[in-house]
Amino acid sequence: MNKSKMNKGTIFGVGLGPGDPELMSVKADRLIRSASHIAFFRKYGRKGHARSIVEGLLPKDTIEFAMEYPVTTEISLSDPRYNEILSKFYENCATHVRNLSDQGQNVYVLCEGDPFFYGSFMHLYTRVKETQPVSVIPAITGMSAAWTQTGIPMTWGDDVLTVLLGTLPKEELTRRMAETNALVIMKIGHNFEKICEALKTTNLYQKAWLIQYAAMENSSVQKLTDVYESVTPYFSIIVVHGQGRRP
Amino acid sequence: MNKSKMNKGTIFGVGLGPGDPELMSVKADRLIRSASHIAFFRKYGRKGHARSIVEGLLPKDTIEFAMEYPVTTEISLSDPRYNEILSKFYENCATHVRNLSDQGQNVYVLCEGDPFFYGSFMHLYTRVKETQPVSVIPAITGMSAAWTQTGIPMTWGDDVLTVLLGTLPKEELTRRMAETNALVIMKIGHNFEKICEALKTTNLYQKAWLIQYAAMENSSVQKLTDVYESVTPYFSIIVVHGQGRRP
Repeated sequence: MNKSKMNKGTIFGVGLGPGDPELMSVKADRLIRSASHIAFFRKYGRKGHARSIVEGLLPKDTIEFAMEYPVTTEISLSDPRYNEILSKFYENCATHVRNLSDQGQNVYVLCEGDPFFYGSFMHLYTRVKETQPVSVIPAITGMSAAWTQTGIPMTWGDDVLTVLLGTLPKEELTRRMAETNALVIMKIGHNFEKICEALKTTNLYQKAWLIQYAAMENSSVQKLTDVYESVTPYFSIIVVHGQGRRP
Repeated sequence: MNKSKMNKGTIFGVGLGPGDPELMSVKADRLIRSASHIAFFRKYGRKGHARSIVEGLLPKDTIEFAMEYPVTTEISLSDPRYNEILSKFYENCATHVRNLSDQGQNVYVLCEGDPFFYGSFMHLYTRVKETQPVSVIPAITGMSAAWTQTGIPMTWGDDVLTVLLGTLPKEELTRRMAETNALVIMKIGHNFEKICEALKTTNLYQKAWLIQYAAMENSSVQKLTDVYESVTPYFSIIVVHGQGRRP
């Protein structure tokens, strides 16, 4: 280990998987059950989804640090203040966990899904990794839980898988959908209608499935043609299964 | 449950994750520790990688069924006998687990990685799902373990992730590499040089990482520019990290 990191506590990015505590890894489960300090992101005024996953697993005297997002949808992504506010927020969070690490404390940052796959933890990680010991535990992604829940295998043979975010422009969504064999779309929410239009243009609409709250208690799986909402919850994923060669 | 499935045992597709037993899910760990019947694929004459992952976890009296691939690389994928031989093989495997299920026995099929993500289990699954109760447990993919091991976050903001198999033609690899933000390449093996040429053409070669045996004891992580092999082992993954927006 880098000499400057000696005697410091480790900052763990603990991937918790898609939501069902039983889908946490054995390692994540073990770490969480003995965590003296945890930190987790959440929306303002909410309990926090990552925190909910570990309910009942934490030791009684765990010290919790909730990192509440200062903005979510109130400010446009293109507004320069957005980056500024979020950057300051992540800096403050990083300072907090860095201080604990400097004091020799291990800090377990709870991460929904897989930490390095579109995870908020990455913003902390890049701010502390040069000076503190860091350890990242991979996890089951929300998309794995989603395609498993459809009961249909996702990728066969040499199928190409493309993962798209619903925030992309419709033209780009359409172009990329037309090119792939298997498709995952995340961050749907208010982009739902735009995504459906792109799926219709590329003749994938009839083959698409919407999975809401995969691996959670209130989960649902529907063919997209059976869905009548115009906005979907945060935990929504659309998949189109690959049809590659198989014996 | 479908009436015809009553009184039958369940066929479980148990995703074991990338290789480290601690990266199995709590659920997979729990199921394996009480499994009376397991089944697993392996190369002829080998112990089997999936079987190795659960070494030491199985009850003493577990009955094991090894499903040995009749061909691997001896026959070309394009040879019509390839599909015929493999199809017969999967049919025989399906018959075996179906019979156990008919006798009321639960059968736990060990799956490397995530069962529905390019998994051999899918070939069994499609052959038994109509008549037997089946349950699939998602798992951490090899690619998650691989990108985690590079110590660099994989996808940011609205990065597009593309997963390619090295078996694709060079022209297709090149075209798809040029289009994506973040890239995963699997099934490398004898396709290594072809893949490197495609990465050079698309100026991704300098940014690519090769991860061998991710989450296993003998794992290694290298920048591709530091690699001098011309063939890589079965457990090799190449990644190019996304560079999307971040505050």
